[in-house]
Amino acid sequence: MQMPSPIDWGPGGSVRILDQTRLPGQEHIAELRTIAQVAQAITALRVRGAPLIGIAAAMGVAIGPARSVADVEESCRLLRATRPTAVNLGWALDRMLAAARAAGPGGGSLAAALRAEADAIWAEDVAMCEAIGEAGLPLLQGAGEVMTICNAGRLATGGIGTALAPVYLAHRQGQGIRVSVPETRPLLQGARLTAWELSRAGVQCTLITDGMIASRLARGGIACAIVGADRIAANGDTANKIGTYGLALLARAHGVPLYVAAPSSTFDGATPSGAGIPIEERAAAEVRGFGAAAAAPAEVAVWNPAFDVTPAELIAGYVTDRGLLGREDLPAFFAAAAA
Amino acid sequence: MQMPSPIDWGPGGSVRILDQTRLPGQEHIAELRTIAQVAQAITALRVRGAPLIGIAAAMGVAIGPARSVADVEESCRLLRATRPTAVNLGWALDRMLAAARAAGPGGGSLAAALRAEADAIWAEDVAMCEAIGEAGLPLLQGAGEVMTICNAGRLATGGIGTALAPVYLAHRQGQGIRVSVPETRPLLQGARLTAWELSRAGVQCTLITDGMIASRLARGGIACAIVGADRIAANGDTANKIGTYGLALLARAHGVPLYVAAPSSTFDGATPSGAGIPIEERAAAEVRGFGAAAAAPAEVAVWNPAFDVTPAELIAGYVTDRGLLGREDLPAFFAAAAA
Repeated sequence: MQMPSPIDWGPGGSVRILDQTRLPGQEHIAELRTIAQVAQAITALRVRGAPLIGIAAAMGVAIGPARSVADVEESCRLLRATRPTAVNLGWALDRMLAAARAAGPGGGSLAAALRAEADAIWAEDVAMCEAIGEAGLPLLQGAGEVMTICNAGRLATGGIGTALAPVYLAHRQGQGIRVSVPETRPLLQGARLTAWELSRAGVQCTLITDGMIASRLARGGIACAIVGADRIAANGDTANKIGTYGLALLARAHGVPLYVAAPSSTFDGATPSGAGIPIEERAAAEVRGFGAAAAAPAEVAVWNPAFDVTPAELIAGYVTDRGLLGREDLPAFFAAAAA
Repeated sequence: MQMPSPIDWGPGGSVRILDQTRLPGQEHIAELRTIAQVAQAITALRVRGAPLIGIAAAMGVAIGPARSVADVEESCRLLRATRPTAVNLGWALDRMLAAARAAGPGGGSLAAALRAEADAIWAEDVAMCEAIGEAGLPLLQGAGEVMTICNAGRLATGGIGTALAPVYLAHRQGQGIRVSVPETRPLLQGARLTAWELSRAGVQCTLITDGMIASRLARGGIACAIVGADRIAANGDTANKIGTYGLALLARAHGVPLYVAAPSSTFDGATPSGAGIPIEERAAAEVRGFGAAAAAPAEVAVWNPAFDVTPAELIAGYVTDRGLLGREDLPAFFAAAAA
């Protein structure tokens, strides 16, 4: 069964999202009619995944007020404040601002330019996912099973995903590829989203808890780990969902290479190293409970960073829309991006 | 506020347990009147923790049929089949069998001997917990914070716990010791039990998800990790709650020593290495959700080992009722136990 698109234009200038907080129980399409609703949907993780956040923000600007460039600047300010870690958000908003400035003021033409730029960002993301898939496919040659974390698939992008893109291409080619899926507490994107979208696509997957990662790696048969990214610093340090750094250390301990898959928009040449990446801390309630179920005493202290930083030396390579890169390729990659 | 005892004799030949599946929401004391009810309570984890399972099983035998030694043998067979990994279960049942054989057949005296042996096992466990606490206390000298996993505290034993015993002694001495508590999916014993009992005792703790362990260790300030054990093989390999092996690897990567705390009854000289320890696999539903909350698609495949094995080379020492032991002390320890 085909899964619904995680994002789309709705009728009459709205944005439609598949509400990811309700998956896998409900496939609820939410209609966002204002920029404030788009901002709320991003903050509340109803739409999430670094590339998809960029697309959603661009579409949010496109449905926002557009009488003047100042309106667009105000829209971008509002959306930029929603989440701090993913760099794609700022990247997409910068593109929308540039498009607005190029179009100049004036009703119809400004609005049309914003919509065209949002469409371009979305279309480019679809193409980048395909290119990432092609770049990563050789890594899966002959692989029986790979491991991922969180969700860096269709639900995180406008296309076939980042970390899961090579998996989908291998599956499309008839390779019986399997995926080991850690559930990814606290918000369970592995269990709720990755297991759901892989099952929908007919890709065999096995769900484990995050504490089982080491045992699963020790058992053997995992060819590699492929994860997404929220921001890749100039030195290759990578911010991604909390748990990725632990996975990287455990993969190294078992001789399993870990790859980071991401589009060019996730590479942030302006941040020298992981130490400069802001890490979002989220509400304690996410850790104290499990969905609607309370798990811990209500008064217990909690630490809830949403991301961690994996040092570049634990990363075997970067699977990008411009090919598979080693750490040594990053300076040239960033120089080309800046040119 | 004092916490209720996790186990006790009830009136009229019953065993009372604090139902651990209902914590922290409800403090429900369940009255077990038959050996079948005791077996069910162990299987369903209403009473859990390797030492406490041993005590519960002994008390179960004591309230079971006792017209003859054959009755006791039948009781032990039933209880031995409840859970495969913790060696304390078999150890306690062997003691009950030996006590029955020593007492010989005959109504009152056999029943009295069984009750006395169960009481002895319980009382010895209380003393072993204190001794473990004393043996581990020097490791916490000047420590601000330690990390544990799962629950190896009051709720896992008849006394002040194993891994948490040194913490309770340090706290009693006025040391402002703090504990970092991974929630320990799938059954959340860290969140539900450890955070609850530490809070009750006034020990400051911080709850994290299992995927945050690496980040917490990288942040610094964790003096050591102390964990319990379900079985320690002759070479020092240790079976404990799933996630312990990963914690051990991550602790080593951050230069944090990991100690295993356990009473003598957890040491199993008959099992040469971790490869010989049977690992219980539990129901897929535990991973697909928590309590009534579903997280994953109902049809997704799951791997759910309840324990993992940490190789001896990742263990800095064994905190036992006979002192703090290094791996090099184990042969003499096992020889003394066998003598």
